[in-house]
Amino acid sequence: SHSINLAVIPGDGIGQEVVAEGLKVLSAVLPQDVKLETEEYDFGAKRYHATGETLTDADLASLKKHDAILLGAIGDPSVPSGVLERGFLLKLRFAFDHHVNLRPSKLLPGVATPLAGQPEIDFVVVREGTEGPYTGNGGTIRKGTPHEVATEVSVNTAFGVERVVRDAFARAQARPRKKLTLVHKNNVLTFAGHLWTDIFTKVAAEFPEVSTDYLHVDAATIFLVTDPARFDVIVTDNLFGDIITDLAAAVSGGIGVAASGNINPSGEFPSMFEPVHGSAPDIAGQGKADPTATVLSVALLLRHLGYETEAVRVEEAVSADLTERGSAVRTTAEVGDALAARVAS
Amino acid sequence: SHSINLAVIPGDGIGQEVVAEGLKVLSAVLPQDVKLETEEYDFGAKRYHATGETLTDADLASLKKHDAILLGAIGDPSVPSGVLERGFLLKLRFAFDHHVNLRPSKLLPGVATPLAGQPEIDFVVVREGTEGPYTGNGGTIRKGTPHEVATEVSVNTAFGVERVVRDAFARAQARPRKKLTLVHKNNVLTFAGHLWTDIFTKVAAEFPEVSTDYLHVDAATIFLVTDPARFDVIVTDNLFGDIITDLAAAVSGGIGVAASGNINPSGEFPSMFEPVHGSAPDIAGQGKADPTATVLSVALLLRHLGYETEAVRVEEAVSADLTERGSAVRTTAEVGDALAARVAS
Ligand SMILES: CC(C)[C@H](C(=O)O)[C@@H](O)C(=O)O
Ligand SMILES: CC(C)[C@H](C(=O)O)[C@@H](O)C(=O)O
Repeated sequence: SHSINLAVIPGDGIGQEVVAEGLKVLSAVLPQDVKLETEEYDFGAKRYHATGETLTDADLASLKKHDAILLGAIGDPSVPSGVLERGFLLKLRFAFDHHVNLRPSKLLPGVATPLAGQPEIDFVVVREGTEGPYTGNGGTIRKGTPHEVATEVSVNTAFGVERVVRDAFARAQARPRKKLTLVHKNNVLTFAGHLWTDIFTKVAAEFPEVSTDYLHVDAATIFLVTDPARFDVIVTDNLFGDIITDLAAAVSGGIGVAASGNINPSGEFPSMFEPVHGSAPDIAGQGKADPTATVLSVALLLRHLGYETEAVRVEEAVSADLTERGSAVRTTAEVGDALAARVAS
Repeated sequence: SHSINLAVIPGDGIGQEVVAEGLKVLSAVLPQDVKLETEEYDFGAKRYHATGETLTDADLASLKKHDAILLGAIGDPSVPSGVLERGFLLKLRFAFDHHVNLRPSKLLPGVATPLAGQPEIDFVVVREGTEGPYTGNGGTIRKGTPHEVATEVSVNTAFGVERVVRDAFARAQARPRKKLTLVHKNNVLTFAGHLWTDIFTKVAAEFPEVSTDYLHVDAATIFLVTDPARFDVIVTDNLFGDIITDLAAAVSGGIGVAASGNINPSGEFPSMFEPVHGSAPDIAGQGKADPTATVLSVALLLRHLGYETEAVRVEEAVSADLTERGSAVRTTAEVGDALAARVAS
């Protein structure tokens, strides 16, 4: 394709700032003959306060026309917890069937980590994105009384689990170490746990080159801090994936560098790329936010759209930048400028 | 009370070895005039294979007669995942209404941690023990077919949440820093999240001296590795508590030293004390297991039964032992002997 038609959702807080740098790098890395068209959408807290809307059917129809979506961050303390998360972020993931939530973790040389001894970290979490405890199933009775009961239902289907497990096996197969770890809690959540484990075992037979193992989610958090080098590809459910990818980000350089892709592999819907971090309202508008996570999300976006060379160029620029500059304090725009200069040259 | 009538459940793998040392220290620390009676129960994999039983009504009736229960570890690879967990461990927690699952984390001087810079760690997690996703609610339809659906239902009641939140506030109030953090995921699990948050806010009004904050579980895992000193007391649901206490154990000296109490505060049922670690069948029978976590669980048991002086003596012995011996390799019995000698003197 010789054009990219991109939906841009800066969102709230630092979202605006980091997305600007992401676009800067994207423009700089694309070949001259690729036309980049962007359309900006004003989703987030401001629009919610003005109109009460988070994401309408018309919005979804409009977003659907794009090749991909780049998102900064959504969320603000002025909006009650859950409203934008459920009403926008999760609604979009579900509506566009973003069932592969891809979250790579790589500790680059020279980058600070809270772990002692600068361990080798280079793994990818494939988090299921459309099922599990995230479906919004459940409810409340006798709300606000001493007899209130609130339930949350984790919904897991063979269809949903198999497609993400298969995707993870294919990714493991394509990596040098070819190792896939299933993370769940099958000793307690036995209904969902058996489904995940049975499908994992079944699909494993189709990928004889991939070595496999299983960890309970609690044990996985231990290994993420004591032996992160043991991980190559991890596949896990929506909630466990949420938890362990924040921990993974923390140990591999911080959420300032953690990228993610919400992928619809069939291409029926546009995929969405976003930093793992939130809108960080405390530092918004000050030029302090690190746009690296957004730039790395742009790399995932490029790869998804078939621009592998350009994706690698962005990733190498980030590597070089982080390794050389270390922990020097730079503004959001300085980091973006440096990365744009690197990918252009 | 001048006697302790203790149920002892060594269980599987290293359970046998570590419980022996726990009892050694318990005997050594108790005043001469306190009579310690123990009754051993053979729960675990061996009995399951021999009889098919995990925990019968008769077992529960017998256990109920004791003042407290000391457990080593339950679980063996020869038993399908979930059978002993649901059929024994969780069955006991639910039957004896162990709604306060207490898990202290303290990094002692000289003890190895995977975190750089030897941070100060001294906090307690109060994990709800009888609700949430652990209830076994849920099910499977069309099992084994491409149309299988498996659900897990997290059940949260005002009654269950309020009593554990209240317990946590009281514990925070009794500590020097008087700080309580609620950990949940109220932006996604909005039904349960609102219940937890509303009750937390309501009970907070009764404890004006306790400062409070809230973290999503994913963010909590970040702080546990980047700034564990920020935590004093944490209250959280059953599953989140399971996950973050393994991480907490890993950063504060490893699961070799992580103790826990499954507490029924009213005393209607005996409380149960156990190390956080599992049965570690790979090192069972070799005298390699560290009994420290079991010994620290004995300290929790002593405190629960009103032997505060003795509890402190055990904790101080462990502190001194860990600080002095550092990472020297010792057998299970050597550690137990050293601790018993310290508490006796
Ligand atoms: C903001 C929230 C809905 C979201 C999630 O829980 O998935 C975030 O934590 C993430 O990891 O993308
Ligand atoms: C063995 C398992 C049932 C248990 C749990 O999940 O509670 C364990 O992980 C724990 O933390 O005590």
